[in-house]
Amino acid sequence: MRIATKALITGTLLALSASAVQAVEPKEAIEYRQAVFEVFKWNMGPLGAMAQGKMPFDREKAALYAQQLNRVADMPWQGFVEGSDMGDSEALAEVWTDREGFESKASDFEQAAATLAELVQSEAPEGDIRRQIGAVGQSCKACHDHYRED
Amino acid sequence: MRIATKALITGTLLALSASAVQAVEPKEAIEYRQAVFEVFKWNMGPLGAMAQGKMPFDREKAALYAQQLNRVADMPWQGFVEGSDMGDSEALAEVWTDREGFESKASDFEQAAATLAELVQSEAPEGDIRRQIGAVGQSCKACHDHYRED
Repeated sequence: MRIATKALITGTLLALSASAVQAVEPKEAIEYRQAVFEVFKWNMGPLGAMAQGKMPFDREKAALYAQQLNRVADMPWQGFVEGSDMGDSEALAEVWTDREGFESKASDFEQAAATLAELVQSEAPEGDIRRQIGAVGQSCKACHDHYRED
Repeated sequence: MRIATKALITGTLLALSASAVQAVEPKEAIEYRQAVFEVFKWNMGPLGAMAQGKMPFDREKAALYAQQLNRVADMPWQGFVEGSDMGDSEALAEVWTDREGFESKASDFEQAAATLAELVQSEAPEGDIRRQIGAVGQSCKACHDHYRED
């Protein structure tokens, strides 16, 4: 139910994204999307450390960070407005020239984050949760490899 | 139901905040909380413009921004960790010396944002929504007046 609602909101968001943010300055849009990625990092940092055994696994903390990550997972993309390929950004031109591919990677990440949030609130074994954190990390990397400067 | 779930998560978050982020560098925590405020701004910008008649009122866009704001409304406070009162931050010492007052203002804002998100998805008249956007703005200001440099 929560996922269905979220998917609906995400659908609305994608449909709106072009018009809703049309009056935004590219600089603002870049700052915004980088801010969302900073929020990703805040949550993925400890999750990644737990997955790699660099921090003790703590189910409650993992749940907090996974839920937070899931809540912002669909937010950065609306900051990739037309004209924001220039400026203080590591985004590659492919974000705009291969929009379909970019949105597909974005969607993969959202799905991975949603799965992690569900899993961590279930009775799933620690190993499964750690593997899913890895899958989220891979979905970040899959997008960065194609659409972000090294 | 969604609000009840969110309140539960928020309660968990507050209970966890001291221990969950204890290993975080103050600099990271400052960057994180400023990033969340940047996300606030992204959403409050057009909402405020609509409330003030500087942008045409659009219920669908208002719903998008209000929902997004509500989803991140409880996130910045965990970035106000011990030791992050120094550095590149406009936070006043009162955040730490008057934690109860700070958390009360934070809670007022979360409540105002939740009310706006509910209202904008209802059949409420435009005027009510615009007034509630104003109330959210006031709750931002009420906190800034006491806990942030001018």
